Amino acid sequence: MLHGGRLGDVRDDVAAFTSSRKNDLCLSDSVISINKAHVVMLMEQKIIPWQDGVKLLKALLTQSASNLDPHAEDVHMALEESVLAKTGPEIGGNLHVAKSRNDQVATAIRMRLRQELQIIMFEILKMQESLLVTAEKHVDTVILAYTHLQPAQPVTFAHYLLSHFDALDRDLQRMRDAYSRVNLCPLGACALATTSFPINRSRTAELLGFSDVLENSIDAVGSRDFIVETLANLALNAVNLSRLAEDLIVWSSPDFGTIELPDEFTSTSSIMPQKKNPEVLEVIRARASYIIGDYVAVIAALKSLPSTYNLDFQEMTPKLWAATNNLCASLNIFTKLIPNLKVSGNVEHKAAVGFVGATELANMLVRKYHIAFRTAHKITGSIVKELVASKKTLPDTTPQLIEKLAYESVGLKLTVKTEDIGECSNPRKLVETYQVKGGPSPVIVKNTLAKKVEALQLLKDEIIKIKETYENRAKQLNDVVETYSISELSVENDFNKKVRK
Amino acid sequence: MLHGGRLGDVRDDVAAFTSSRKNDLCLSDSVISINKAHVVMLMEQKIIPWQDGVKLLKALLTQSASNLDPHAEDVHMALEESVLAKTGPEIGGNLHVAKSRNDQVATAIRMRLRQELQIIMFEILKMQESLLVTAEKHVDTVILAYTHLQPAQPVTFAHYLLSHFDALDRDLQRMRDAYSRVNLCPLGACALATTSFPINRSRTAELLGFSDVLENSIDAVGSRDFIVETLANLALNAVNLSRLAEDLIVWSSPDFGTIELPDEFTSTSSIMPQKKNPEVLEVIRARASYIIGDYVAVIAALKSLPSTYNLDFQEMTPKLWAATNNLCASLNIFTKLIPNLKVSGNVEHKAAVGFVGATELANMLVRKYHIAFRTAHKITGSIVKELVASKKTLPDTTPQLIEKLAYESVGLKLTVKTEDIGECSNPRKLVETYQVKGGPSPVIVKNTLAKKVEALQLLKDEIIKIKETYENRAKQLNDVVETYSISELSVENDFNKKVRK
Amino acid sequence: MLHGGRLGDVRDDVAAFTSSRKNDLCLSDSVISINKAHVVMLMEQKIIPWQDGVKLLKALLTQSASNLDPHAEDVHMALEESVLAKTGPEIGGNLHVAKSRNDQVATAIRMRLRQELQIIMFEILKMQESLLVTAEKHVDTVILAYTHLQPAQPVTFAHYLLSHFDALDRDLQRMRDAYSRVNLCPLGACALATTSFPINRSRTAELLGFSDVLENSIDAVGSRDFIVETLANLALNAVNLSRLAEDLIVWSSPDFGTIELPDEFTSTSSIMPQKKNPEVLEVIRARASYIIGDYVAVIAALKSLPSTYNLDFQEMTPKLWAATNNLCASLNIFTKLIPNLKVSGNVEHKAAVGFVGATELANMLVRKYHIAFRTAHKITGSIVKELVASKKTLPDTTPQLIEKLAYESVGLKLTVKTEDIGECSNPRKLVETYQVKGGPSPVIVKNTLAKKVEALQLLKDEIIKIKETYENRAKQLNDVVETYSISELSVENDFNKKVRK
Amino acid sequence: MLHGGRLGDVRDDVAAFTSSRKNDLCLSDSVISINKAHVVMLMEQKIIPWQDGVKLLKALLTQSASNLDPHAEDVHMALEESVLAKTGPEIGGNLHVAKSRNDQVATAIRMRLRQELQIIMFEILKMQESLLVTAEKHVDTVILAYTHLQPAQPVTFAHYLLSHFDALDRDLQRMRDAYSRVNLCPLGACALATTSFPINRSRTAELLGFSDVLENSIDAVGSRDFIVETLANLALNAVNLSRLAEDLIVWSSPDFGTIELPDEFTSTSSIMPQKKNPEVLEVIRARASYIIGDYVAVIAALKSLPSTYNLDFQEMTPKLWAATNNLCASLNIFTKLIPNLKVSGNVEHKAAVGFVGATELANMLVRKYHIAFRTAHKITGSIVKELVASKKTLPDTTPQLIEKLAYESVGLKLTVKTEDIGECSNPRKLVETYQVKGGPSPVIVKNTLAKKVEALQLLKDEIIKIKETYENRAKQLNDVVETYSISELSVENDFNKKVRK
Repeated sequence: MLHGGRLGDVRDDVAAFTSSRKNDLCLSDSVISINKAHVVMLMEQKIIPWQDGVKLLKALLTQSASNLDPHAEDVHMALEESVLAKTGPEIGGNLHVAKSRNDQVATAIRMRLRQELQIIMFEILKMQESLLVTAEKHVDTVILAYTHLQPAQPVTFAHYLLSHFDALDRDLQRMRDAYSRVNLCPLGACALATTSFPINRSRTAELLGFSDVLENSIDAVGSRDFIVETLANLALNAVNLSRLAEDLIVWSSPDFGTIELPDEFTSTSSIMPQKKNPEVLEVIRARASYIIGDYVAVIAALKSLPSTYNLDFQEMTPKLWAATNNLCASLNIFTKLIPNLKVSGNVEHKAAVGFVGATELANMLVRKYHIAFRTAHKITGSIVKELVASKKTLPDTTPQLIEKLAYESVGLKLTVKTEDIGECSNPRKLVETYQVKGGPSPVIVKNTLAKKVEALQLLKDEIIKIKETYENRAKQLNDVVETYSISELSVENDFNKKVRK
Repeated sequence: MLHGGRLGDVRDDVAAFTSSRKNDLCLSDSVISINKAHVVMLMEQKIIPWQDGVKLLKALLTQSASNLDPHAEDVHMALEESVLAKTGPEIGGNLHVAKSRNDQVATAIRMRLRQELQIIMFEILKMQESLLVTAEKHVDTVILAYTHLQPAQPVTFAHYLLSHFDALDRDLQRMRDAYSRVNLCPLGACALATTSFPINRSRTAELLGFSDVLENSIDAVGSRDFIVETLANLALNAVNLSRLAEDLIVWSSPDFGTIELPDEFTSTSSIMPQKKNPEVLEVIRARASYIIGDYVAVIAALKSLPSTYNLDFQEMTPKLWAATNNLCASLNIFTKLIPNLKVSGNVEHKAAVGFVGATELANMLVRKYHIAFRTAHKITGSIVKELVASKKTLPDTTPQLIEKLAYESVGLKLTVKTEDIGECSNPRKLVETYQVKGGPSPVIVKNTLAKKVEALQLLKDEIIKIKETYENRAKQLNDVVETYSISELSVENDFNKKVRK
Repeated sequence: MLHGGRLGDVRDDVAAFTSSRKNDLCLSDSVISINKAHVVMLMEQKIIPWQDGVKLLKALLTQSASNLDPHAEDVHMALEESVLAKTGPEIGGNLHVAKSRNDQVATAIRMRLRQELQIIMFEILKMQESLLVTAEKHVDTVILAYTHLQPAQPVTFAHYLLSHFDALDRDLQRMRDAYSRVNLCPLGACALATTSFPINRSRTAELLGFSDVLENSIDAVGSRDFIVETLANLALNAVNLSRLAEDLIVWSSPDFGTIELPDEFTSTSSIMPQKKNPEVLEVIRARASYIIGDYVAVIAALKSLPSTYNLDFQEMTPKLWAATNNLCASLNIFTKLIPNLKVSGNVEHKAAVGFVGATELANMLVRKYHIAFRTAHKITGSIVKELVASKKTLPDTTPQLIEKLAYESVGLKLTVKTEDIGECSNPRKLVETYQVKGGPSPVIVKNTLAKKVEALQLLKDEIIKIKETYENRAKQLNDVVETYSISELSVENDFNKKVRK
Repeated sequence: MLHGGRLGDVRDDVAAFTSSRKNDLCLSDSVISINKAHVVMLMEQKIIPWQDGVKLLKALLTQSASNLDPHAEDVHMALEESVLAKTGPEIGGNLHVAKSRNDQVATAIRMRLRQELQIIMFEILKMQESLLVTAEKHVDTVILAYTHLQPAQPVTFAHYLLSHFDALDRDLQRMRDAYSRVNLCPLGACALATTSFPINRSRTAELLGFSDVLENSIDAVGSRDFIVETLANLALNAVNLSRLAEDLIVWSSPDFGTIELPDEFTSTSSIMPQKKNPEVLEVIRARASYIIGDYVAVIAALKSLPSTYNLDFQEMTPKLWAATNNLCASLNIFTKLIPNLKVSGNVEHKAAVGFVGATELANMLVRKYHIAFRTAHKITGSIVKELVASKKTLPDTTPQLIEKLAYESVGLKLTVKTEDIGECSNPRKLVETYQVKGGPSPVIVKNTLAKKVEALQLLKDEIIKIKETYENRAKQLNDVVETYSISELSVENDFNKKVRK
């Protein structure tokens, strides 16, 4: 608790080795708030004399993250020492009544992580918005989609972008799921077994904006699954982004030429101005591996760790903050990049060379000429074979060719209209036939887009509400602290009567 | 689609290398169901002649997982070939209209995973029940809890068990969160772009018991985040178990002696019958690493993979099934082990030697003798120092010693009652003072237990409902299939009139 | 030691959970050999009566891996029980004198791993051979190499293949480095502290073909770094292969068209016979992730494990064997695939469009026209800019264009010969200029190839020698065992005189 | 090459996102050296005019890492710009003749890593020295060793320390193996295909202290296996340390009480001065997970990456430097901590309670009383059973008890001497019987220690030699640079005659 002479006893090199000060700078604001809420509660529960509480609150009110000692062992010590210096040991010592570094640090990390998760959720929303806006411009832009990196079927670029929109939707859901498990308050668990003082855990949880207390005291100080869960979500989100990056890297190579990256997002050379290295995408791709590594570092550290608090915990948070920053940066870059992509496709030629309409040719025979499915496939198979052999492509298919090969392959007399063939080999026409729910045709995509725009707004409102709740609570805490810190006389006597009579 | 001559073209060694048949045995039932639902929908949508549908359904009705060819390239081919053999190519070919292996396999994996998640959720519930039942027997059993593996504070064993109950609660929540994202139907996305046939995706989704379709067709066949998310949840659950295993391994070493493992869960030697190797716990501890490895294998495979379908996907599911089996086994063993743990504590001696009451001694001085917090700590510090120096322990503290040291250290005259001291050094009394919400005192724990029993029942009802919904839908599908398969005459003519006129 | 009644005491489900029998089938041969060598040593050291040793050896000689009980707890128990059944407990019990499962299993794993490493080294050599043979056919085949997946410079395909040859060289080196640390004998460490019997560890190490004993007894039974090291090497080798797979997947997409995969290594569809899904390469790519996962599983299990033996160790070997099998299969497929690759490049067009000769144009001006480096670059920059603007490519550069732009951009009068320009824009000519050590020009590559062929043969001889040493030792062990097993009378009396007088 | 106007074209946020400047500060010295060696070679090969070379060398001689622009895109740009500023573009441009960032950065990383590996090897040696020095003081100190965290057998503390010495030996071997693969020079590979200038790669390799060139130019710029290999070695070393940390954490808990950590390496509380949290060991334990994470981050980034250079590479080195620093710090702390450990064992009591002599009691009956092995075990089993039942320990065994139970259990009349029993139950005597090679008895350990001291000195000499070679080469480079930079007149004319006639 009072670690007074402690640092003097430890070797400097050991203290430097175990110090978390550099890494917990970002916890300073949370730690100050926690101490405010704790003192307010101690005053209300009459655990400390009102007047002592007032002095502590005054000391805390003048405390900012920036004037905490950067050389203290950790942020908790830094704040303690600062308050002790301002109030003297007899009063400053009360700051630690019924509180331990174990519960305090767990609370501070969760407070900080709430903020980070809010930021990430907004970054996801912004990237989703960027995808929607760009998709709206590309409802009629046809590109060729691949499976196994082999040409497969034409889709609209808007449809492609929406597939990433949906993946981000799930990423956002996962962040919100995690948020609900992060936003619980461990404070009051103390070292691990709560305390014999009649503290009010619900009150501090409320003052600090948590949705509830994290009940069991051993679990409260000894669990870090919320960090692992968050890292897993960050890693998965980053991996989803890496797949978008990979698509764009491949598609913007001149050989594919599906996409052109905007100059200001690539690096070129003065001697080869046509060259556009997709460096920003390569960095995003590599950074996904970083978060996988962060996840592994933390879960491997947590595995087999005894219950309750071990200092191994301290080493987990730097990885968490590194990962949130990392993902935010990548989301942010994509948000800016996507609207600037140029789709330069040459899709007709590719589709022809790729025979991507062959399946549809068979389907058409089934649908329009009532050929049995299997027969239609046999006919189409022989057509493609013949075309490949004569170095032709699908648009070269003629009614005569079909008639000849239908007869040769299955003994069927078949006269097909030219326009029916055309629809199969024209990628744009092909796309238009994909009118199933969730399909890529412009008519479906337009419809989907409208729904997504609406859904996104609702989501945004929801996340804004989360943020506002959080900010309101912070304001309320400050109001309480300020009120209490100037109400010395009125309440103190009454308090002292009961406690110190 | 029709891979007819395909396997003949590929080298046997290459086919063996890429074959997924061994690993997708567990998908067989799902694949059969999918084909049933698909045919029903094709019939309803009049995409295939009613009579063809009837024949397909009849063929599917006689098909079981066990009589599929185990040597086919994959389960999809095995079923196709079996149906083709029964119905002939002209009718059997209709099975593949408006469907691809890409959407079929994604659907089958999700169906199988629903089942696995249900099983895991029940296993978690069972282990939670086991924890509750055991906790009820140990509400008054006091053990010493540690931080940094150093003695910290006494708690009740029930309280300790509840900390793991709460961790499992979150594990269960995460499984349910994942379930909601798994239980969406990709069927109808076909290769990646849906189809030009007027299929009804909502209908097949409903028939297969999904809560909705997985809308975007590229996303539907090209996303595997649901596998990574599930693996992350499995890994985290396993890591939570590894921490319980670690505690029990350490606590059952004779040096700690907190816990005795039941003979039938340990291995001993005929020559050293007192030795009890906690092998089962060591295996559980190691198996957590397995799932971390499975997670890494899959996320590293997914990272940077181009959109849509790549065969890398095929390699992901074996890791998923390995991980679900692995976790289930560990949960199951714990469920059986926990009620058989003997708590053998010797907590009085440990607590005394560990001076675990020192903090409470100071707290007591603050609370009962109105000594300022800081002063109380100084006095206690000198008491402990003196006791350690004279090789005594906390229960050796006397009013005289306190009087002497209070005067020497802070110049205070202080007379403390013997019973006040006793309460601080008696671990049982100490525990009783921890009456804060979420604390370990018997009175609080009893209360908590009652709430948990109730909550667990509600949870169980909910998971049972999920399972029932799922089973009802399966029954409904079979009802529809059976009805359709014997309704040839009534509907066929009408259908044929429209389609084949 | 004697675990006689042990399994009866343990619950069946617990025994099934902790059993390693399924996974240590592959250790059977090694365990039998270890017991032979151990008995020989016990006889030589006169720790057991000669006659007992003879009976044990006879029992062991009739023992094969296939007739060990597959339902025993582990392979050690299976062998013990079999020998006990043959010789009776009084003699069979001697098998366990001065030996423990702890040292026996460590020895068996190392013996098995030696074999696996030999197999892998040969598979690497075979793939290297395949690369060399294929490279010899492609010394003059020019392809375009990329950086950032953007066209960079032409190289010969042979040169490209040699880059993978060199990577495999390092993989092989690492396997050999690991081999030297694997090939040490832990036997004789017993449970962890050796024994009070006067055993001869060097003798058993020699009989089992190890290069030396693994000295410190705690280290001998308690270290598994050799498994982690091997897995790291396997993972890295697999990752090197994944990069080759990635190149070929990208290059064989029709958009790149650099490579054509042989039909028998790809999957096609009857309706789209031109499509060639590079499934085998996708599986190899994904399998690299498997070994990364295996590595993580094992190192995460090893981290923070107490010294000496813990059952967590048992869970490590299945991952090791999975990884060796996995890598072998991928190496083997590549060995067969590489010679069948068709290089179909169209490199002239690509090089022209990619302006890959621009840098060389500047270099040429420096070298042949003594233009300062910086000036040459400025001139070339304006040439490329002009060509791009007028939708031309590098081969369209004329002496007139250079003259005009040299004057405009840097005020220089410059007349360049047409053939000098041609050399810069012709990819084949460009390659020929890269005559530096390690460069891609045919003349250099031919030279390099000759050296590699020679080096490979030397390497092969070396690995063959390792294998032969290993096999000779196995033969020697059997010779000793057979000799001893029929020499009852001659030596026994003498032995008994000393020991049982 | 000349990226002149490049940064102006890229958005500031994109440039900040992809910039590696912060992370490659540590490469500055290497990059300066590389440019010196490159210019020297260009002068010698007469690729640039001698006088230009002199000016470049003069510019480079006044260049230090500290005066490079910290805001440039990367260290390469920073140096280029600085030299251009000093020499003007016409001469400064020559710095980039026949060199690319791709080969330069690969060379710089390898140079830096050589240094890091040297430092780590020395840190390992220092920790090994610390282990030896401490072991020498504990040759006769007996502790109880555990398996499965259950008491197993007594060993000497020196023997225990030597087990970690041997593990470090292998760690050091692996670092040296990696060093040999790191110490190869990629310079001259240029972008990926070498160059048309007649550069001398062997000369620059020699000037930069490499043992050879990394031959194949694609491999030279496109391989990063040396980073993964090093990280794997670092991770494994850290995991070995984590196991030592775990032992000490467990052993220093008061329940075990085997070890006492020195005060100045632990944290205590003013109120509980007897408490010693092993924080420094917990941090070391957690940091092993960091390096596993770093490894995963890098290998996951490398997996499936196309050949040659991709910017993903840039993201790998920060993880490498983080890991080397991390491991160095942990090694360093251990070096200081180990000699200050107090062994406080109470081993007699533990050994008695743990029946650790039971096996030896049976062995003794075999050896001294010529009882058959199996019979001896049966007798001992009944003795232990009886003692446990009557709450006694092994030292309570009497000749009478043995006589009684030998008769009851196996019908044997057996009279054993008291001193023979005593030797089995006295842990110190037990240890003395473990006289096998690699065993823990003082006589063996003394012998082993003497050998290790000698071996360590040889190793140290070898690593010092590596370091000296490296430093000598650095000195030689500077000598050449200084000589050339003042030899303008003598050589220039001759050079110019040939080149600029």
